[in-house]
Amino acid sequence: MARERTYLDWNATAPLHQGARDAMFDALSLTGNPSSVHAEGRAARGVVEKARREVATLVGADPSHVTFTASATEAASHVLSPVYRMGKAKIAIGRLYVSAIEHLAIRAGGRFAPDEATELTVTRAGLIDLDAIEVSLAAHDAKAGLPLVALMLVNNETGIIQPIREASAIVKRHGGLLIVDAVQAAGRIPVSIDALGADFLIVSAHKLGGPKGIGALVSRGETLMPEPLVRGGGQEKGHRAGTENIAAIAGFGAAARAMAEDVVGRNDAIAALRDRAEAAMLAAAPDTLIYGRGLPRVGNTSFFHLPGLKAETGQIAFDLEGIALSAGAACSSGKVGASHVLTAMGEDAATGALRLSIGPTTTDQDVERFIAAFTAIAARRKLAGRAA
Amino acid sequence: MARERTYLDWNATAPLHQGARDAMFDALSLTGNPSSVHAEGRAARGVVEKARREVATLVGADPSHVTFTASATEAASHVLSPVYRMGKAKIAIGRLYVSAIEHLAIRAGGRFAPDEATELTVTRAGLIDLDAIEVSLAAHDAKAGLPLVALMLVNNETGIIQPIREASAIVKRHGGLLIVDAVQAAGRIPVSIDALGADFLIVSAHKLGGPKGIGALVSRGETLMPEPLVRGGGQEKGHRAGTENIAAIAGFGAAARAMAEDVVGRNDAIAALRDRAEAAMLAAAPDTLIYGRGLPRVGNTSFFHLPGLKAETGQIAFDLEGIALSAGAACSSGKVGASHVLTAMGEDAATGALRLSIGPTTTDQDVERFIAAFTAIAARRKLAGRAA
Repeated sequence: MARERTYLDWNATAPLHQGARDAMFDALSLTGNPSSVHAEGRAARGVVEKARREVATLVGADPSHVTFTASATEAASHVLSPVYRMGKAKIAIGRLYVSAIEHLAIRAGGRFAPDEATELTVTRAGLIDLDAIEVSLAAHDAKAGLPLVALMLVNNETGIIQPIREASAIVKRHGGLLIVDAVQAAGRIPVSIDALGADFLIVSAHKLGGPKGIGALVSRGETLMPEPLVRGGGQEKGHRAGTENIAAIAGFGAAARAMAEDVVGRNDAIAALRDRAEAAMLAAAPDTLIYGRGLPRVGNTSFFHLPGLKAETGQIAFDLEGIALSAGAACSSGKVGASHVLTAMGEDAATGALRLSIGPTTTDQDVERFIAAFTAIAARRKLAGRAA
Repeated sequence: MARERTYLDWNATAPLHQGARDAMFDALSLTGNPSSVHAEGRAARGVVEKARREVATLVGADPSHVTFTASATEAASHVLSPVYRMGKAKIAIGRLYVSAIEHLAIRAGGRFAPDEATELTVTRAGLIDLDAIEVSLAAHDAKAGLPLVALMLVNNETGIIQPIREASAIVKRHGGLLIVDAVQAAGRIPVSIDALGADFLIVSAHKLGGPKGIGALVSRGETLMPEPLVRGGGQEKGHRAGTENIAAIAGFGAAARAMAEDVVGRNDAIAALRDRAEAAMLAAAPDTLIYGRGLPRVGNTSFFHLPGLKAETGQIAFDLEGIALSAGAACSSGKVGASHVLTAMGEDAATGALRLSIGPTTTDQDVERFIAAFTAIAARRKLAGRAA
């Protein structure tokens, strides 16, 4: 890349934390399969179990309730199972309920057939609709099995923090299981599986400074678990077969440990930068529409629409200015698709919106560069009714 | 570890190749999600596609036919599917056939129920039994769907190279699909998906000098594919969702590239070391039983039984002498279980056998240390009918 770049797309993937990098480098020089009983195997096992404790601490869980997966997506495909086990007993799930703003990994429905899943509407503001959950679960046919509900704690596009505790109360009243996608929340706001009232949490390393290729399914207990998705050896207590990805697990653990410190203070500092960017956007283009302002949002995200600028065009314009940001989620092989989040909110998904997402190493200078680029792009856009 | 260690357990996991380490370190300093369209995303995408070409070259496949997975185990769970797709059409698989010496990842049967799978017997020598395949497939009930056969190219315990081409001819005559587990073969002997007559190959990075946490499902074409296992975003052409593990993929590619060079010469050199170890074992303890001698074996593996020495005890004894080797496969969470490979061969699995497995960086000195330890341990063992 010829010119200096400013990376403002942390919700797509965060830069690797230095501590995570160091832990990975150390782990890569260990030879040994954690399933081997010799000294090399035991050393590799130690790395895995240390990281398991670190990830558990980040989300207030017991280390024995952390199952490492290759990604949050794998964790989702794993936990979205029509069959659960409690010991040797099979527990049937009758229907899956997911909100309309969930990530594609959840919306794809895991191992449920499309007609076994119900989409829950969201409010125009971008909040999951508690009434919709209540109405859907009241109509649930318990004969087919339990209701399984999957909701995200922080939306990946808007950054809006969702009312999970309230949703959990409804799910529990109807005897259901609650899966919480905490991918964009863990390490950014305090997350506790118990306080949320979740049965399962999904976490991804690479959104919080760990490496790509590792995630976790965290459970509240260990008696009730979904049928394994990846089968073979007895790794991860039989819940997920395959030789453990030692280096990625070590990196995940180190990032989780770093992000577990001073979560609130760090989020506040990041929010101050984000708020400065938003104030400058509104000053430069008062017609800028920023989604979720006034609602509880995670501090690092700003999802905005600039009238007259198509999101796809805007993303390219920022890229040419040396700034990486995103038009919605980056999860579909390079295509910029219409945002299902905007659609669910009743907004114009075809025009779309842009997402600025930052992190602990984002600097004042990064924000200044963004503001300069935004101001230039806003000045160039074609406004309806104005001469081009 | 207090004393110098000698690692002779390459079939459990190989030490990371220096080129793979370098490629990983480079990849870890790239920020960017390969699905993002900005410059950072495109750079990450480039790393993935370069590695895809390198892995394809190793097994004589087209790069567009390589699907990265988090492990060979995941690739197995993915490809062992009762439902395949050809475009939009569903192709039903009626029954799964696996040999009795397959790895647990295959024997677990993926998404087949236990009663949908048939185990194929093997010969006493440890070879898959072509007659058993013929008899089983002749009795296959085609009404339920196609037969799906999964066989390994090199056995992970004995190192015996299996007659896959001959097996493929039988499978093809009966209209079946052939999956070949090439995990212990790729990079050690020449592997070509076409020459083998395989429809799918399974490969693992960490057995050939790449990192743990990455594998591949390689297909002969791209029209007929198993139903996706991990669902969500459109990564890997929709065959496997989730943000790509860039660093591990880069390491896999670099290791594959290195191992694609001079496969035969390297295997011969490794076999010479292994043969020296075996000659010394037989000299020190003429009653040592070495499995697969006289059959085509991969050069790096020696699977042996020393009368009077239980495999589990032997493994600990070698570990205390500073030598890491294995009692069978290291795939079941630290337990030393009875070897199903020995059982399938009609041998005494309770007593077991030990596996020496070496690689390109194994030295003369490593072999000398093994021979010294073997000689000491053989002298100490309790032989039936001999005073303790």
